[in-house]
Amino acid sequence: MALSKKPVTGMKDILPAEMQIRDYVISVIKETYAQFGFTGIETPCVEAISNLTNKQGGDNEKLIFKILKRGEKLNLETAKEEIDLVDGGLRYDLTVPLVRFYSNNSASLPSPFKALQIGPVWRADRPQRGRYRQFYQCDIDILGEPTNLAEIELILATTTTLGKLGFKGFEIRINERRILKAMAAYSGFPEESYDSVFITLDKMDKIGLEGVKAELLENGFSADSVEKYLALFQGLQEQENGLEWLAAALGDFLDQDIKDNLAEIITSVEATKAAEFKMVFDPTLVRGMSYYTGTIFEIAIPQFGGSCGGGGRYDKMVGKFTGNDVPACGFSIGFERIVLLLLENGFQIPGAKEKVAYLLEKGLPTDRLCEVMNEAKAAREAGQQVLIARMNKNKKFQKEQLQKEGYVNFKEFYKTPLQ
Amino acid sequence: MALSKKPVTGMKDILPAEMQIRDYVISVIKETYAQFGFTGIETPCVEAISNLTNKQGGDNEKLIFKILKRGEKLNLETAKEEIDLVDGGLRYDLTVPLVRFYSNNSASLPSPFKALQIGPVWRADRPQRGRYRQFYQCDIDILGEPTNLAEIELILATTTTLGKLGFKGFEIRINERRILKAMAAYSGFPEESYDSVFITLDKMDKIGLEGVKAELLENGFSADSVEKYLALFQGLQEQENGLEWLAAALGDFLDQDIKDNLAEIITSVEATKAAEFKMVFDPTLVRGMSYYTGTIFEIAIPQFGGSCGGGGRYDKMVGKFTGNDVPACGFSIGFERIVLLLLENGFQIPGAKEKVAYLLEKGLPTDRLCEVMNEAKAAREAGQQVLIARMNKNKKFQKEQLQKEGYVNFKEFYKTPLQ
Repeated sequence: MALSKKPVTGMKDILPAEMQIRDYVISVIKETYAQFGFTGIETPCVEAISNLTNKQGGDNEKLIFKILKRGEKLNLETAKEEIDLVDGGLRYDLTVPLVRFYSNNSASLPSPFKALQIGPVWRADRPQRGRYRQFYQCDIDILGEPTNLAEIELILATTTTLGKLGFKGFEIRINERRILKAMAAYSGFPEESYDSVFITLDKMDKIGLEGVKAELLENGFSADSVEKYLALFQGLQEQENGLEWLAAALGDFLDQDIKDNLAEIITSVEATKAAEFKMVFDPTLVRGMSYYTGTIFEIAIPQFGGSCGGGGRYDKMVGKFTGNDVPACGFSIGFERIVLLLLENGFQIPGAKEKVAYLLEKGLPTDRLCEVMNEAKAAREAGQQVLIARMNKNKKFQKEQLQKEGYVNFKEFYKTPLQ
Repeated sequence: MALSKKPVTGMKDILPAEMQIRDYVISVIKETYAQFGFTGIETPCVEAISNLTNKQGGDNEKLIFKILKRGEKLNLETAKEEIDLVDGGLRYDLTVPLVRFYSNNSASLPSPFKALQIGPVWRADRPQRGRYRQFYQCDIDILGEPTNLAEIELILATTTTLGKLGFKGFEIRINERRILKAMAAYSGFPEESYDSVFITLDKMDKIGLEGVKAELLENGFSADSVEKYLALFQGLQEQENGLEWLAAALGDFLDQDIKDNLAEIITSVEATKAAEFKMVFDPTLVRGMSYYTGTIFEIAIPQFGGSCGGGGRYDKMVGKFTGNDVPACGFSIGFERIVLLLLENGFQIPGAKEKVAYLLEKGLPTDRLCEVMNEAKAAREAGQQVLIARMNKNKKFQKEQLQKEGYVNFKEFYKTPLQ
């Protein structure tokens, strides 16, 4: 009968104060993306175990909460391995479910399909401060749009959302997987080592040019290649327009169209943005996921050390699952980080209603009670948030508790109206 | 690599049209209950398996999706039973999580605590039309309010919500577990058979007075008791004010305060309601859950056969879990049924934005693209929902698809502006 009071290891209860911020952030996200023509979708939290373990999820596949088979399908005696026992799992991200959703429903979806998904995902990670085993992801994707309209709209919608949430002075860092590759090719790195080179490059902001150089040499790359590669980054530091300079330096290693495409994204966003931020071409931006095929981008908010979301183009992923390539581009917003930032900065929800608490003495006759309820009704219709509670014996303590919840105005009602 | 496209058995993908209705219903619920001083909370979808299997959940405990232990804790070779393999499960309702949440956090919560929870729950039921293994519940509870203010506020907030969603002409049927018991006692049924009597009574709307009589006799109850019991219900049919008549008929079997308390709820709600509905005292209302201790109520919407939500007072449940009784009263809204009703009736979301699709010819130069994006920006800020897409080769088909999504206005942009 006894209940364990704590949430399960690594998961948390969300209390009213945080919940209000979460609800507000979700409402701003939904409202803003709707203006840009995105529609919400939802997929079940449970996916077939085969969909979650097909090597698209990288290390996340090691962290799945697996679901036991039920009824006759569960046979403990003949089960030899874990996989004999389970048939489903809790999703570890929203990308696999999106691709499955799109494959399942594409006949009833418009093209391009602009999708917004917000929901919990689960990873059985080692619990640590500020990281939970259940957390929300917020993914926005455009499927079926081959041109850079997808990138432009995604970045505009996302930055407009951030602007509405009060963020400013942030950066959208942008790069291209094909530029990354062209730089590696130009420098003479062997193609099969690109991923290794990029892993080192990704550390640029932490270990600097010298650190990257040292690590590349340590990893056995030729001094010649490393020299050429580093020279590009050194050269870039002195440029006003890094992208044009780089394209010129790379010559035939980079298709002019790729540069023009990226330049158009940067120019169009800068010319039409609705929030206060900067587009920054960042040739050191790598982003881990190997499924990206073109543009990649990341939100950097100065108040927050790391990245607060990012995404890119992944034109080959739907095809890997379904056999038919569909151009795709997506943005994942760091929902939990944004909520945390707002909470830590004492964010006040704009347009919050005035909160009034009515305290009623016990034994108020029915007709007086109706008067009070009608007064509350009028106040609620006029936009107030009215809490009605029976007056506790310790009224002072009751008021203090309510003040913590934001009730600063009180009305008291007694059996015998006070003179 | 291949993906199974379908959702797992018994669960479903939610497409944009339904999702818009769901989001709208959730926003109306959150907004309305907030006006009444309710605050949102959230608990993890996963609960400790021991919390889900402590006999409070009745048959739902047979339908749990169980979660496999992970890492060293999972030992297939020594596992003899299911319980050796699992440590968590997906919640089958929001009541167990609420009580756990309250026990865990009560020190930081106000009294009374008015909670709103909306979220998915899971039951591995046999799949059938319109019933899914993942579905949303929407629970509203007041903990720490011993008086009928809890019932009055819950019914007012819930009916105001339904009214805002366009429902009218519905009924809130209300009864009292202690009146049910007084009627059984008055008729001379043995106390240990009350539950059996109520199970039969619950069928009144299907099998009628004669059917109830026959079943009670069949179950072996004395003809005398059955006669007395049925006479009460027959007598009630002829009354203007059934509650007063019944209280008089029951005499000392019913505490006068219980009748007054229920009468006050009905009177106060009728006098201060904001929606078009009727409060109906229904002495045949039973509601299955044995944890109810006082008032019980149910929403009956004529457009929908059965009940569309209900609840009641359960003053002893928190104590069963924690050792300390806390007065509690709750309402569970049939979220999925309400969404289904709105969908089936072609519900139009009020205040929906005008939807405009901009179609852009491929190869629009950057400066023209910026003009278009700025035009869209202005339109969005003015309240339009603007979708921007590259013009497909089959423009007619593209427009037809977009029309299905509600885009009736189109603007086309060409490389060479049309004369």
